[in-house]
Amino acid sequence: MQDIGKFEVLTESESHARTGRLHTAHGEVETPIFMPVGTKATVKAMLPEELIENGAQIILGNTYHLHLRPGDELIKEMGGLHKFMNWGKPILTDSGGFQVFSLSQLNNITEEGVTFKSHIDGTSYFISPEKSMEIQMNLGSDIIMAFDECLKYPATEDEIRKSSAMTYRWLNRCKEAMTRKESLLFGIVQGGLEYKTRMESLEQICSVDLPGFALGGFSVGEPIELMHKVVKEVGHEMPKHKPRYLMGVGTPLDLILCVDAGIDMFDCVMPTRVARNGTLYTWQGKISIKRAEYKKDPSPLDPECECYTCKNYSKAYLRHLFQMGEITGSRLNTIHNLHFYLKVMEKARAAINEGRWEEYRDDCIRRFS
Amino acid sequence: MQDIGKFEVLTESESHARTGRLHTAHGEVETPIFMPVGTKATVKAMLPEELIENGAQIILGNTYHLHLRPGDELIKEMGGLHKFMNWGKPILTDSGGFQVFSLSQLNNITEEGVTFKSHIDGTSYFISPEKSMEIQMNLGSDIIMAFDECLKYPATEDEIRKSSAMTYRWLNRCKEAMTRKESLLFGIVQGGLEYKTRMESLEQICSVDLPGFALGGFSVGEPIELMHKVVKEVGHEMPKHKPRYLMGVGTPLDLILCVDAGIDMFDCVMPTRVARNGTLYTWQGKISIKRAEYKKDPSPLDPECECYTCKNYSKAYLRHLFQMGEITGSRLNTIHNLHFYLKVMEKARAAINEGRWEEYRDDCIRRFS
Repeated sequence: MQDIGKFEVLTESESHARTGRLHTAHGEVETPIFMPVGTKATVKAMLPEELIENGAQIILGNTYHLHLRPGDELIKEMGGLHKFMNWGKPILTDSGGFQVFSLSQLNNITEEGVTFKSHIDGTSYFISPEKSMEIQMNLGSDIIMAFDECLKYPATEDEIRKSSAMTYRWLNRCKEAMTRKESLLFGIVQGGLEYKTRMESLEQICSVDLPGFALGGFSVGEPIELMHKVVKEVGHEMPKHKPRYLMGVGTPLDLILCVDAGIDMFDCVMPTRVARNGTLYTWQGKISIKRAEYKKDPSPLDPECECYTCKNYSKAYLRHLFQMGEITGSRLNTIHNLHFYLKVMEKARAAINEGRWEEYRDDCIRRFS
Repeated sequence: MQDIGKFEVLTESESHARTGRLHTAHGEVETPIFMPVGTKATVKAMLPEELIENGAQIILGNTYHLHLRPGDELIKEMGGLHKFMNWGKPILTDSGGFQVFSLSQLNNITEEGVTFKSHIDGTSYFISPEKSMEIQMNLGSDIIMAFDECLKYPATEDEIRKSSAMTYRWLNRCKEAMTRKESLLFGIVQGGLEYKTRMESLEQICSVDLPGFALGGFSVGEPIELMHKVVKEVGHEMPKHKPRYLMGVGTPLDLILCVDAGIDMFDCVMPTRVARNGTLYTWQGKISIKRAEYKKDPSPLDPECECYTCKNYSKAYLRHLFQMGEITGSRLNTIHNLHFYLKVMEKARAAINEGRWEEYRDDCIRRFS
């Protein structure tokens, strides 16, 4: 208990890449790490044992979705999100901000908070910084994200400054509202995609004494090169002795480039979502399992992969399952993609610890580009 | 190898219920047994390890579906159905007859065979007794079902007799076409739902020297009581020292009543199909997980069940997953229903072996009625 929130930087590379260890109420997390997304109290198509078997250390839950269905109070009554979904390792929940601004029909944004209509049935909801903290504490999250405003891209410098300033005021309200000692509050840096405004937000947000910080406001429609550029510029400017989390990113290549920029934590729906659509990541690049060339292919998805799917099934079988719309296909594909993402990160940690990060990074860039 | 096809009757109860052991090329099967259905080279939502963990000894594959997609020749090229789907235990395949007559658009039925159009894309196919054997041998099945004509219900006595006679002639052609020593051919008794015509078919079919026999032509729209009546009348008339298989049946109550009538083997899509629709079988009866009363219910589906789902998840969680349409919900529900079916049969075997079948049977009838 006394260690909760402690973050140790273990090894630093010559670039900004580093390994670290974050202590949470549900155990330690070795960074850099990818967090599978369990939107609605399940990582789609996966059970907890499979996540663990494939190397997951921590998963993400979505405040917006869980608040709407089945409701955070119900989950609290059922003993919290860990117990509800049978997951004994750490959980990070987002603040709901991103979904409120992207999924719902917005009614009103004020200093007090955001009124919106549910994307499911149009019911009206209000979420404020205090409400977001309450929801996340009801869920029993190990890492709670601050409630922030997510601006659309592009936005003017003036819009960005006003928004960042409110996000900062909201962060202070979030901190004030935190009453659960086992939960760690992370602040979210906004500030758009310009170095100047981004750094202004970074300095504001990181001036608050918190156990970790995130970069938000990416994956909002900007060109991917711009994301890489901004993260490269500001990643290493975040507090060195706190975990740095890049929200909602990304492809295996994005992960490698951003680890290089000093990021420790990632989450993204991509590996699970595209798996269900038949897109698989391999050490030889991305493949679409539905292609006719795999019809009679007895080889595994990836000869370099040791996941359950690659050890036991052929491309021909996976293609058949995909074509038939079988749940088993979604399962096997999801196992592979998550194993792949988690293995990319496991190998990154080993490479950093063993002083050969640049070599591993360059090999990955070659393979994934 | 020398034992393949051997069937030992182990214990007989005072009714017609009995336990037995069937030897196949992929191992032994303890009867009475329920066989999960793996229509398209997968038991929907399940992986082989989960089937085994829940007590599956043998599964069923569908000749009609696999012939159409991905094709039995492709499966043969990939090393056979066992290897293709990573299932090392016995597989029984149906003959395609039932699906040809129920799913496809029939063009022509002659003495030679059946011409039909695929339910997927209208492509024309021809299946004869010889073709059905070829397909099932390509799949590498341990138990191959004879190609029979499935009459609609109701049919006239004349129609039934003509059809049964053709099914008998087809059976002899099936036997003639069998060239794979590892595969056991089972004959299928037809003869409609009258005792007289059914017994006529039984005597014809069972006069052929084969390692096992089935009752076909049920689940064709007849009242369930009529099926119970006919199986009770004719089940024990089937050869005593051969396995007796009742095709496509049924509910847990059906299984118990038909074991009592002397049946050894069953298959049905019901436990897997209804699981995906939120219907769960328990020792206290059937429940629909979507009901509002389970919204905040922290208890497991079935307090008497020791399956993975019941050990780890609440009704509230299962209801939430069902409402959200999550694959994880289909998985957990399928695990439970299959575990339940297989446990009903495991307990039946134990009860028969221990001389308390009637007590177990009556308890099940009370619980499942």
